[in-house]
Amino acid sequence: MAEQDKLSIVLFSGDLDKALAAFMLATTGASMGMEVKIFFTFWGLNVIKKNEGSIKSKGLMRKMLNIMNRGGSKRLKLSKFNMFGLGTWMIKRLMKEINMPSVEEFIVMAHEMGVKLIPCSTTCGLMGVEQEAFRPEAEPLAGAAYFLAEASQSKVALFI
Amino acid sequence: MAEQDKLSIVLFSGDLDKALAAFMLATTGASMGMEVKIFFTFWGLNVIKKNEGSIKSKGLMRKMLNIMNRGGSKRLKLSKFNMFGLGTWMIKRLMKEINMPSVEEFIVMAHEMGVKLIPCSTTCGLMGVEQEAFRPEAEPLAGAAYFLAEASQSKVALFI
Amino acid sequence: MAEQDKLSIVLFSGDLDKALAAFMLATTGASMGMEVKIFFTFWGLNVIKKNEGSIKSKGLMRKMLNIMNRGGSKRLKLSKFNMFGLGTWMIKRLMKEINMPSVEEFIVMAHEMGVKLIPCSTTCGLMGVEQEAFRPEAEPLAGAAYFLAEASQSKVALFI
Repeated sequence: MAEQDKLSIVLFSGDLDKALAAFMLATTGASMGMEVKIFFTFWGLNVIKKNEGSIKSKGLMRKMLNIMNRGGSKRLKLSKFNMFGLGTWMIKRLMKEINMPSVEEFIVMAHEMGVKLIPCSTTCGLMGVEQEAFRPEAEPLAGAAYFLAEASQSKVALFI
Repeated sequence: MAEQDKLSIVLFSGDLDKALAAFMLATTGASMGMEVKIFFTFWGLNVIKKNEGSIKSKGLMRKMLNIMNRGGSKRLKLSKFNMFGLGTWMIKRLMKEINMPSVEEFIVMAHEMGVKLIPCSTTCGLMGVEQEAFRPEAEPLAGAAYFLAEASQSKVALFI
Repeated sequence: MAEQDKLSIVLFSGDLDKALAAFMLATTGASMGMEVKIFFTFWGLNVIKKNEGSIKSKGLMRKMLNIMNRGGSKRLKLSKFNMFGLGTWMIKRLMKEINMPSVEEFIVMAHEMGVKLIPCSTTCGLMGVEQEAFRPEAEPLAGAAYFLAEASQSKVALFI
């Protein structure tokens, strides 16, 4: 298969700063005419969980995990200098000042630009998260084989 | 050199979750017929250290480092929600429930599937770790030049 | 565009160990004849900030951020085992023992070998950092579109 103008990103991290990096690259790539896919795995699943409601999951441990690890684009924190929320709050204010979209806005924007947002089926199984936990912008779940097939055809593949 | 169906992964992290991500991708790639190599560097070296015995190293500081940073596939912890071991224990139980291999099992499986597990010679030198500290599945040590030569011929190269 | 012998690295992290990994790969790539570029973004900007003087920035929050997040190659810390500076000090001593360059030396060396060190314009805007905050080895600021164009032409692109 020939390489096409594709950009494939694994977003493993659920940190606010890494999510921003992923969406900046994704939307920039889309605006350059690249076909962009983000695969959300492990903590990265949090980024595209719904902000509202609770997450149904079977078994006590998965319930506990999904309470601690609630997710939703509005709940992400900085990987550094979170300082009990102060650093995260500051960065969000600075983002507004320079008119940078929030993660919430980036998700909507990326979706409208045709970026595919794909939750990893294996880590969903591990953490007891189902399709309905994700925002409507999320595509159906897919596995590592799908990512590798896409990445093999991509000019740029990154693990964030 | 033409690009072949190769997947090259640097595993820099020694966290349980990132090691799982690396091995899921590696074994999936191998099952798809890709030629897969994982280069273990820095904290990632811990993933393929032996679980048993102590690590011989010269000099007081390297001895201290290798005690604190003991390694072995069974000693890896989550990058988040470790909670003094509780989170790590929970994830391991959830993995068993869905029949996901442990890192220990992933290493053996990957090796049997032909995935090459290569410790980085430079960081081994830095940390005072020698070939004998690694499991029998590990290949001989190799440096950054070898990784870059491989990655240049790979369809997918990731830094985890 | 045909792929050339290029290596493009995003350095997102400001940790000593990840900076070392980036510069080891970059200088090794350059010595193999690859055309190498490192794009510094978010905490990675700290790696190529000047070690001396203070950073001028407008507004109270950006001033606070730049005091906490001072940066400079000599202020980087390990991502693990920093132990209030003890671990970082130990690693720096071990690096000297095996004649591994410090980050400071790696920057000068990489620059002399032709590696381009490029700060990300968007995160500079976010954090209130201007060109003059960076060492003379730094290239002019550039954005995500420039990185993606370069990465698309690169044999190896990594996010560290």
